[in-house]
Amino acid sequence: MKQQTFPKNTWYVAAMAEEVVGSKPLGRKICGENIAFYRTADNQIAAILDFCPHRGAALSLGYVEDGLLVCGYHGLKMGADGKTQAMPLQRVKGFPCMKSYAVEERYGFIWVWPGDQSKADKSLIPHLEWAVNPEWAYGGGLYHIHCDYRLMIDNLMDLTHETYVHASSIGQKEIDESPVSTEVNGDKVITSRFMENIMPPPFWQAALRGNGLADDVPVDRWQICRFSPPSHVMIDVGVAHAGHGGYQADAKYKASSTVVDFITPETETSIWYFWGMARHFKPEDQALTDSIREGQGKIFAEDLEVLERQQENLLAFPDYDLLKLDIDAGGVQSRRIIERIIAEEITQQAVEVSEKPLQVITF
Amino acid sequence: MKQQTFPKNTWYVAAMAEEVVGSKPLGRKICGENIAFYRTADNQIAAILDFCPHRGAALSLGYVEDGLLVCGYHGLKMGADGKTQAMPLQRVKGFPCMKSYAVEERYGFIWVWPGDQSKADKSLIPHLEWAVNPEWAYGGGLYHIHCDYRLMIDNLMDLTHETYVHASSIGQKEIDESPVSTEVNGDKVITSRFMENIMPPPFWQAALRGNGLADDVPVDRWQICRFSPPSHVMIDVGVAHAGHGGYQADAKYKASSTVVDFITPETETSIWYFWGMARHFKPEDQALTDSIREGQGKIFAEDLEVLERQQENLLAFPDYDLLKLDIDAGGVQSRRIIERIIAEEITQQAVEVSEKPLQVITF
Amino acid sequence: MKQQTFPKNTWYVAAMAEEVVGSKPLGRKICGENIAFYRTADNQIAAILDFCPHRGAALSLGYVEDGLLVCGYHGLKMGADGKTQAMPLQRVKGFPCMKSYAVEERYGFIWVWPGDQSKADKSLIPHLEWAVNPEWAYGGGLYHIHCDYRLMIDNLMDLTHETYVHASSIGQKEIDESPVSTEVNGDKVITSRFMENIMPPPFWQAALRGNGLADDVPVDRWQICRFSPPSHVMIDVGVAHAGHGGYQADAKYKASSTVVDFITPETETSIWYFWGMARHFKPEDQALTDSIREGQGKIFAEDLEVLERQQENLLAFPDYDLLKLDIDAGGVQSRRIIERIIAEEITQQAVEVSEKPLQVITF
Repeated sequence: MKQQTFPKNTWYVAAMAEEVVGSKPLGRKICGENIAFYRTADNQIAAILDFCPHRGAALSLGYVEDGLLVCGYHGLKMGADGKTQAMPLQRVKGFPCMKSYAVEERYGFIWVWPGDQSKADKSLIPHLEWAVNPEWAYGGGLYHIHCDYRLMIDNLMDLTHETYVHASSIGQKEIDESPVSTEVNGDKVITSRFMENIMPPPFWQAALRGNGLADDVPVDRWQICRFSPPSHVMIDVGVAHAGHGGYQADAKYKASSTVVDFITPETETSIWYFWGMARHFKPEDQALTDSIREGQGKIFAEDLEVLERQQENLLAFPDYDLLKLDIDAGGVQSRRIIERIIAEEITQQAVEVSEKPLQVITF
Repeated sequence: MKQQTFPKNTWYVAAMAEEVVGSKPLGRKICGENIAFYRTADNQIAAILDFCPHRGAALSLGYVEDGLLVCGYHGLKMGADGKTQAMPLQRVKGFPCMKSYAVEERYGFIWVWPGDQSKADKSLIPHLEWAVNPEWAYGGGLYHIHCDYRLMIDNLMDLTHETYVHASSIGQKEIDESPVSTEVNGDKVITSRFMENIMPPPFWQAALRGNGLADDVPVDRWQICRFSPPSHVMIDVGVAHAGHGGYQADAKYKASSTVVDFITPETETSIWYFWGMARHFKPEDQALTDSIREGQGKIFAEDLEVLERQQENLLAFPDYDLLKLDIDAGGVQSRRIIERIIAEEITQQAVEVSEKPLQVITF
Repeated sequence: MKQQTFPKNTWYVAAMAEEVVGSKPLGRKICGENIAFYRTADNQIAAILDFCPHRGAALSLGYVEDGLLVCGYHGLKMGADGKTQAMPLQRVKGFPCMKSYAVEERYGFIWVWPGDQSKADKSLIPHLEWAVNPEWAYGGGLYHIHCDYRLMIDNLMDLTHETYVHASSIGQKEIDESPVSTEVNGDKVITSRFMENIMPPPFWQAALRGNGLADDVPVDRWQICRFSPPSHVMIDVGVAHAGHGGYQADAKYKASSTVVDFITPETETSIWYFWGMARHFKPEDQALTDSIREGQGKIFAEDLEVLERQQENLLAFPDYDLLKLDIDAGGVQSRRIIERIIAEEITQQAVEVSEKPLQVITF
């Protein structure tokens, strides 16, 4: 049996809210589950197995009518609970109930719980202050990458790589010359790096200008990477004119943001990578939002080939023991938390299976 | 051992006659067999294993000379019986005889019997009246689709899907509001649907106009799907001005055709789909033939994604029991006949194997 | 366990020298080994496993600095011996030593020994007179082909195929009408064919013109194919005005060259094919070199589809016994030598394994 590499009883970002609009469903595989997302009559989001109980057609090729997802093959009408509501000339009462998923639209994202719906608790969706506070602006995008989601967590919990992968934008030699510190707090991991009195690299020069600040003077720079399960990494980044307190400096001296990373496994070796930047200055400036998103999109695209080739190498040498240096501590600690959560999930499933027979897709 | 999913001792359409012309062979996989089709000196069609006995080159990359298929690698000359006839400077008498196939050009198609040639009986090729009677005109094409051939049989034996998959051309709501009846007659299955006093959808409006009839009046419409093994589906379709007898109406009131579907397995999960329409009005009107073919080509292309995604879903959930509703009866009954024929073929092979040792490609 | 199909303790051409320039490494798989090639400070070539000991990134995505290969992910600096030399803020003494490869730049090529470096002996790199003697000129290129490298050896040791595959350039009917002779001399195999008093085909007409000789008179033509392990095939080819001694004719009557073929396995079923022509006339004429390379490139591209389809056929019928005719003797004898060398290598490895435990990528 293939080893489970991701928790399933947890919330993942499945889509940006604007990806599911009108009567058109979205089919997307999340944690190995083919899911059809669509909007019901009251514009609520729904998520069901992307498999028509009639003949196995992909429901996501259909359309929404009167809040039901209509199969595009023979017109079966599916409800958000996985129960068939109607089909032309058919009595549908005896049709099998298909798997449906706990799903929630919040903060501009669609969140899904790919595992056991009965365990889903919406209060576990993390609070995203930047998404609800008007002092912040957000822009972001989505990349599909062929790598294990944990390689992306490693990537984001160790920003040393900026010096090399992103040399022309956010990278600078001072990053890998500065030590990091890593702390674990329950299920959270924080890796921090502070650099004082350095010149800002091009991306941050542009951000300083965007915030009306001089871009040709020394700054203090910070990177505080915050992992929380299953695979969210929020990174406080910014620069302040040197000598004003750095991360703690008054807003008028700094350009600061949170890099937003939701890393959602598609399969064991591919991910949906939702990236973005929440900005804590000039939130009303849409042109600035667009320009930052464009710049960030180019920067994050530089990681793709590195990660995909790393994945290929690890598949070729599955038994190689990767080094665990201090700079890797963020990823290493995050993986330990993930492993513990997966182990708990497996134990819990074993208990449940011993109590009732396993059912594959109907229940 | 992989389960056999298609009969092999039967006639399949392998190609349109115009696909094999002049000295150029055609390589095509049929029922898992790589076959080289070519024309001999008297323009007869021949079919042999696409494998040169010398070094395994693909014979279909070669050319025909003096009625022999010349291997394009080292010049071995192969006869239609799978026996090497000549090779420069070589004595070829001892060369192994390769598999050849019973093959026949008829009705504008090339028919092949991919199994045991000694069992092939040309009288079993179905009679196609529309192909020989000058009152009919035919136009068609070929699609390559990644699905089990039986999914296409299901598709064609249940035209309910027209309402959804082909909504803008031949689909209309009245189809899935009208019940179907299915009857089995020996190895034939017929599924019929009749709709009375309805407005014609766009494709049939155009056909009515093409036949010089009013297109804005109510019609009676019919669909009579006729399966015959291994995988041929001929569908009588048409409309007649309402109240003149429908399917039985006099020719002057109607536009009627036969949808022609030869579904040839390439592998267990891919097909060569020969589609077309035989028209029983204005057979001399080539422009009308071309226009219908173009319209039908667009319509049938709409099925491709539906079928390929359905195939992916069924591979992901191989144990799911598809529903068998009344509308599915045509496909279900057709599959039963196919299963019986395959079982007979396997039994027959077992008897033969017990009598002589199995030989793979030489005999 | 998969059978070893190529020797590894031997020299292969890995690249043309000009493929590895400046600070940019080249990543290339040779005999199943992912190798990063780069140039050290003194412009010497180095070859190490394309796998960063830190986190498994592909080192070939990095760059060279001060003669060390810098990993493009986190800045680890690797030496040519597979030992990490430095990494920002890290002590690297305990880092595992990665596999490095014996490598040599010679004759305009980069040669690699993909097996056990301790066995590598540079004196075993074959002497290439045409590469060091100013009377010769060389031009060539590289193709990536999906076939077992031995199929390409077969191809080159039996030029009968020129009549069919290269009919419009170097092929002519007289080739396959002329017998070949094959001799084995230790680890070398030579297949020869001589044709007298024939008209030159287009490629050789152009070569005669290029050498200032009449191209419309009968010639004597020769092909002498020389295999040496593991997979080098040098072919003496040429034409001389008829009656002057053919292969032995004085230089003023002939246009003669050596077709150069280094066939390097990438995997069991794919190769890097380094092809070229060393010309023994007008060596100073660069335009002639370019024109011959262009012509040869087109000719050799004609083999690709033939070989790839042959490979597919052989994978489909792995048990088919290919015929071994006189024209195949060159390939058959070459394969025997290869098999013997592989068997010796396996025996040797077994002895070594019994003496020390196997290590996968560190040593």
